Amino acid sequence: MPSSVTTIAIGPDPTAPKLLEKAIADAGARLGDMAEADALIWTGRPDAFPAELPASVRWVQLPAAGVEDFFAADVFGQHPGVEFTSAAGAFSASVAEHALMMLLAGVRYLPEQLRARSWQQAEFFPHVGSLRGKTVTIVGAGGIGRALIPMLAPLGAHVIAVNRSGRTVRGPGIPADVETVPADQLGKVWSHTDHVVVAAPATAATRHLIGADELARLKPSSWVINVARGSLIDTDALVTALNDGVIGGAGLDVTDPEPLPDGHPLWELPNAIITPHDSNPPQLRLAAFADHVGANARKFVAGEALNAVIDPTIGY
Amino acid sequence: MPSSVTTIAIGPDPTAPKLLEKAIADAGARLGDMAEADALIWTGRPDAFPAELPASVRWVQLPAAGVEDFFAADVFGQHPGVEFTSAAGAFSASVAEHALMMLLAGVRYLPEQLRARSWQQAEFFPHVGSLRGKTVTIVGAGGIGRALIPMLAPLGAHVIAVNRSGRTVRGPGIPADVETVPADQLGKVWSHTDHVVVAAPATAATRHLIGADELARLKPSSWVINVARGSLIDTDALVTALNDGVIGGAGLDVTDPEPLPDGHPLWELPNAIITPHDSNPPQLRLAAFADHVGANARKFVAGEALNAVIDPTIGY
Repeated sequence: MPSSVTTIAIGPDPTAPKLLEKAIADAGARLGDMAEADALIWTGRPDAFPAELPASVRWVQLPAAGVEDFFAADVFGQHPGVEFTSAAGAFSASVAEHALMMLLAGVRYLPEQLRARSWQQAEFFPHVGSLRGKTVTIVGAGGIGRALIPMLAPLGAHVIAVNRSGRTVRGPGIPADVETVPADQLGKVWSHTDHVVVAAPATAATRHLIGADELARLKPSSWVINVARGSLIDTDALVTALNDGVIGGAGLDVTDPEPLPDGHPLWELPNAIITPHDSNPPQLRLAAFADHVGANARKFVAGEALNAVIDPTIGY
Repeated sequence: MPSSVTTIAIGPDPTAPKLLEKAIADAGARLGDMAEADALIWTGRPDAFPAELPASVRWVQLPAAGVEDFFAADVFGQHPGVEFTSAAGAFSASVAEHALMMLLAGVRYLPEQLRARSWQQAEFFPHVGSLRGKTVTIVGAGGIGRALIPMLAPLGAHVIAVNRSGRTVRGPGIPADVETVPADQLGKVWSHTDHVVVAAPATAATRHLIGADELARLKPSSWVINVARGSLIDTDALVTALNDGVIGGAGLDVTDPEPLPDGHPLWELPNAIITPHDSNPPQLRLAAFADHVGANARKFVAGEALNAVIDPTIGY
């Protein structure tokens, strides 16, 4: 039965998790069979993706932020008339929240306070800092960086965003006074930087982006947060800087080596916060994916441009 | 020499700290002698306040959020033609930041992770939560609450603000979807609440506002944060709830008794974060006061209504 209501199917398992079902309904669409669907939310692997899609299907939402495997399976080549979207950006908010948590915990001296077993107000007072009026440099202003900037703004922190192009970072909740600096001028930001959040992809160019020289140019009160990949920081240089009080501390959700082996010096440093790459745990991923699907379904129903559209000619 | 530029004096010590000097200059005013001043920033005690002010002085900024002592010294009665402002709200941001830090650290399972000396990703994954989509009830929507709401918004948390009047909380950065509930209907919010931040004044009516009944109506994942006064929470009931897993945890910058004595059970609970009433340490107060002075000086220069005007007829 044809319907004027947009119909969205879920596959390969057509039984939608409640959160996805709600996201589709809230967007003003209805959940239906693939045979009559305008769009498909795909939650499975590339090799199970249908070789043929009904002609009615104009949009397919894929479940991952990185879709190399769907390229390898030639999913896009097989369906040239269909618009595909990835989940790029969907999982950034949880990682950004984790980065903010580690940064705040560091700046406000939580690790030392958690170890205390007595009321040491006078001892702790001078060590409790604030992000207000401080400059946080975010190295890598992709999804995580763009999610983090709006979280830092109401805390009164100033943000320097570093990206490859140096093109001004814009987006919902991103204040107009965010400075954007191209990566090839990273050396100029350290003297203006209070704290650093590393959120850039791991490439040959970003390996050991933060080493002894960069750490030396930060402040004894600076915290360095890494939620990207361990290889972006020179771990040995970091351990030395933490031991010598060159910087205030480090919050690491990723390490090099990873997993961090038992007995590694980082485990015992009082000014290191280590979380075992758990900033985006499995149970939070479905909710984040449902939010992403809901936003795209609303746009699809309204005929607007979708988020995270995959361009088969550039490979993501 | 008369000047068209607004002149602001600082007393009793006319040597301004650099931050105050900068705040006055940035506001487009100039620092000058009391004899020719349009306004006075008072950083001293009530008993040192001048009995006579030059007729040119139309505005006096006081250094404290609570000005009971200035009432007791009859400072307002002696200067009926002068507008006085307190520092109410100036110190809220640091306390709100501290509350956010403890809430995020709790929700994302930081205390347990800080104790780890090995990479326990699989064990920690299920415990790492997020504020996204969660409802945070702020009991007491005064300065701290109003500073905290804009910090929670970009994290995707929904806020229920509880105040005496139930009048809708508004202000810069406060989203339109914040629910405001009058304090006499507090009992109705618990079933919708994921986490609680206590930020209400300590009065006879708010003593043990959070007791065994309220804790029982929260969730095993709920965190309770107190940045107000220890007496608002029934400590014995809280210890029992934390021990029995009735709630997820508690972040306490204030305790009852305070200081928390050595050997108190709260020190040893793995799901309690204790900070020794240091959410607004001395070194952050001057910066916060300078921000407050700067904002008021800008308004004074522009002829706009000032922040935190004291009304001698109501007593604050």
